[in-house]
Amino acid sequence: MAGTIDAVVNLAKRRGLVYPCGEIYGGTRSAWDYGPLGVELKENIKRQWWRHMVTSRKDVVGLDSSVILPRRVWEVSGHVDVFTDPLVESLHTHKRYRADHLLEAYEEKHGHPPENGLADINDPETGQPGAWTEPKAFSGLLKTFLGPVDDEEGLHYLRPETAQGIFVNFKNVMTTSRQKPPFGIAQVGKSFRNEITPGNFIFRTREFEQMEMEFFVKPGEDEKWHQYWIDNRFQWYVDLGIDPENLRLYEHPQEKLSHYSKRTVDVEYAFHFKGSKWGELEGVANRTDYDLRVHSEGSGEDLSYFEQESNERWIPYTIEPAAGLGRAMMAFLVDAYDEEEVPNAKGGTDKRTVLRLDRRLAPVKVAVLPLSKKDTLTPTAEKIADQLRGLWSVDYDTSGAIGRRYRRQDEIGTPFCVTVDFDTLEDDAVTVRERDTMQQERIKLEDLQAYLAERLAGC
Amino acid sequence: MAGTIDAVVNLAKRRGLVYPCGEIYGGTRSAWDYGPLGVELKENIKRQWWRHMVTSRKDVVGLDSSVILPRRVWEVSGHVDVFTDPLVESLHTHKRYRADHLLEAYEEKHGHPPENGLADINDPETGQPGAWTEPKAFSGLLKTFLGPVDDEEGLHYLRPETAQGIFVNFKNVMTTSRQKPPFGIAQVGKSFRNEITPGNFIFRTREFEQMEMEFFVKPGEDEKWHQYWIDNRFQWYVDLGIDPENLRLYEHPQEKLSHYSKRTVDVEYAFHFKGSKWGELEGVANRTDYDLRVHSEGSGEDLSYFEQESNERWIPYTIEPAAGLGRAMMAFLVDAYDEEEVPNAKGGTDKRTVLRLDRRLAPVKVAVLPLSKKDTLTPTAEKIADQLRGLWSVDYDTSGAIGRRYRRQDEIGTPFCVTVDFDTLEDDAVTVRERDTMQQERIKLEDLQAYLAERLAGC
Repeated sequence: MAGTIDAVVNLAKRRGLVYPCGEIYGGTRSAWDYGPLGVELKENIKRQWWRHMVTSRKDVVGLDSSVILPRRVWEVSGHVDVFTDPLVESLHTHKRYRADHLLEAYEEKHGHPPENGLADINDPETGQPGAWTEPKAFSGLLKTFLGPVDDEEGLHYLRPETAQGIFVNFKNVMTTSRQKPPFGIAQVGKSFRNEITPGNFIFRTREFEQMEMEFFVKPGEDEKWHQYWIDNRFQWYVDLGIDPENLRLYEHPQEKLSHYSKRTVDVEYAFHFKGSKWGELEGVANRTDYDLRVHSEGSGEDLSYFEQESNERWIPYTIEPAAGLGRAMMAFLVDAYDEEEVPNAKGGTDKRTVLRLDRRLAPVKVAVLPLSKKDTLTPTAEKIADQLRGLWSVDYDTSGAIGRRYRRQDEIGTPFCVTVDFDTLEDDAVTVRERDTMQQERIKLEDLQAYLAERLAGC
Repeated sequence: MAGTIDAVVNLAKRRGLVYPCGEIYGGTRSAWDYGPLGVELKENIKRQWWRHMVTSRKDVVGLDSSVILPRRVWEVSGHVDVFTDPLVESLHTHKRYRADHLLEAYEEKHGHPPENGLADINDPETGQPGAWTEPKAFSGLLKTFLGPVDDEEGLHYLRPETAQGIFVNFKNVMTTSRQKPPFGIAQVGKSFRNEITPGNFIFRTREFEQMEMEFFVKPGEDEKWHQYWIDNRFQWYVDLGIDPENLRLYEHPQEKLSHYSKRTVDVEYAFHFKGSKWGELEGVANRTDYDLRVHSEGSGEDLSYFEQESNERWIPYTIEPAAGLGRAMMAFLVDAYDEEEVPNAKGGTDKRTVLRLDRRLAPVKVAVLPLSKKDTLTPTAEKIADQLRGLWSVDYDTSGAIGRRYRRQDEIGTPFCVTVDFDTLEDDAVTVRERDTMQQERIKLEDLQAYLAERLAGC
């Protein structure tokens, strides 16, 4: 099980999960649009994350802060100064690369870093020994200008992470939600980064959705909570169906930690990119008291917490599990993708492509398929579809042979197909087919909703 | 019923529905952040819209396109040229205003437009006769730059509407979803406009969420479908609890229609702003074949549809209901806000503030309240809260007298309070109090989930 990225990109385009952004204008490699099935899958992932991280917990609340915050936020957080990537240009092809990515790819391939740095790196485009400009610090912040003139006064940044919106609202949220540490604030939303090398489908794009949670704890309890969230987040992907063999935890080396971090562990998935097997799904960082401390100093607002029990005042440490929604979607798709040979009606076998998505994630839950296009079946089939549509995302498909329609649902991961046949008009029952086992059961119409509800619980 | 904007703003800040963005850095009048309860309310509105417009219909599918589209999209759509507002500056206060807003406010107040245009308009700041600069065209598009240099090549725009992302994906979506006109493509997402005068709380902000649907129909059937969607969208607000007396349809005068529109009708709510009673919740426009036509011409891609039945090829007309999520939220809050006198335990009356939100919209569905903080009640109360938390958004509140806790839930619109008292330990039952009637019922613990599920169906 688990497919290649190419197979998934192909399926995504063909079935309306993901399209290249602005394709009729030549498209762009840096952005993607989510089609009818992609939106539903993405929303389902978001909903599972929110349920797991917020509504099912008593110690986490939600937030939705702005993309454009006061500029001062990014000066104080350190982003204006240090949120940069090392940009190099190939003197042969004039293409631009991130120096750190080139060096990491070399190290992953050879098991050790290059002896002479960039000088040892081949040009990815030509495969020949490369020639590189000196690395230059390149700001990852996207600018925009509010107000009538594009001047310094109007200069603002699009957020490169949702986290800062949480830190600057920390006090408001703690007060109004009557929470106290240990507690968390979660947020799902778009962020923007001026990536030098967007690519690998929806893995690295200039605009992307994050699912971030900042968990505020007492200093000294931070390491324990950090480990708790590392384990919790790893398990989330497993519980939603990802094969643990395709996941790993990656410990950031001390010398490569971000300026705010004491320890960061990534959850990675085996995407098998060209040049690199593993890709980050989310980082779980111990941000220490860095953010609340700099915003206390920068704003003059006291963001410490007074603990009555111990009569102590302290600035909470923050544990941050920060996941990428597009990356999660890509991992769920790659991991669920499967091709297998199944017996056909003629005594041979056919290839079937099936997305073995967890039912909670499947973009369509039920497909209603009248066996024939004959008018006699239409009213019953449409009535069933209408009733189920109020409850779940439902597809109604009348076109082509029934086997072909099953395959069409299999490859988008629809857990149940409900077939209305001529017997239905006599016995008031339908055939329900399950995606993975392809087992069929005859279910009375009056029991259909309960049958599906039991199997789609939590969707 | 229905509150003032000031009362709602106050409640929103105090209870964590909406905070001023970046408040610790002095805030800004142009952006707002949604707190724990605000996020839930906003998500519930979104979910109801999506269910109504997409999943419960067989003729509408969803999409989620990028904020930053190829620049060419906005040149072809006409936005680069005509998406401007007339900016004037007061020579007295140097504050900037939109000339059209000043003129409209005058007309609404006096029943006729000013005879001498701007010259008759008082300065809103001083109340004295105004002195104004000549109106200047001011672009509403926010710019950003992709790539390493802020030059013409990297210039891009943040979308001012989600609609264009739908038009450029029209063909991809139609093909992959096997739809044909009449059918629609719906999208919820953030848009950005360089507003001259943001204000009136979350009514007019520089970044805002839209809920837009483009419905593609055969030319000649456009007027019928336009009226269908005007009626449908008006009714949506009514079905979710807004008093129809506080809603009206506003027909745009022919001479003020946007460049793409044949007819536009707004759904408006009686916000009672200073200077203007009504505010637009959404516009329902007949965009004709304008958008698909210009994008066919601009991209060279044929966006017409070949109708087999009639053997005709035509470019679909588009009917667009485009709603603002923040505005809908504000209308639901203002309309649901109520204050009333209720009897208290001492034989007198107390004022109670209650948000009479539709149960589907209420940010918290159930509050679990142990009558006393005594340890004996805690395990049972926490167990009940944990069980319900998996199903709905649940609050657990132990602090203060029970009457005070009821009031706290009333003012955020929680439909049900579940009180755990000392009898619970004997009779395995709890008291369930309904928000609007304040009626209390004793419910067996084993029946509690079913009792609530019946009353929270569709939430």
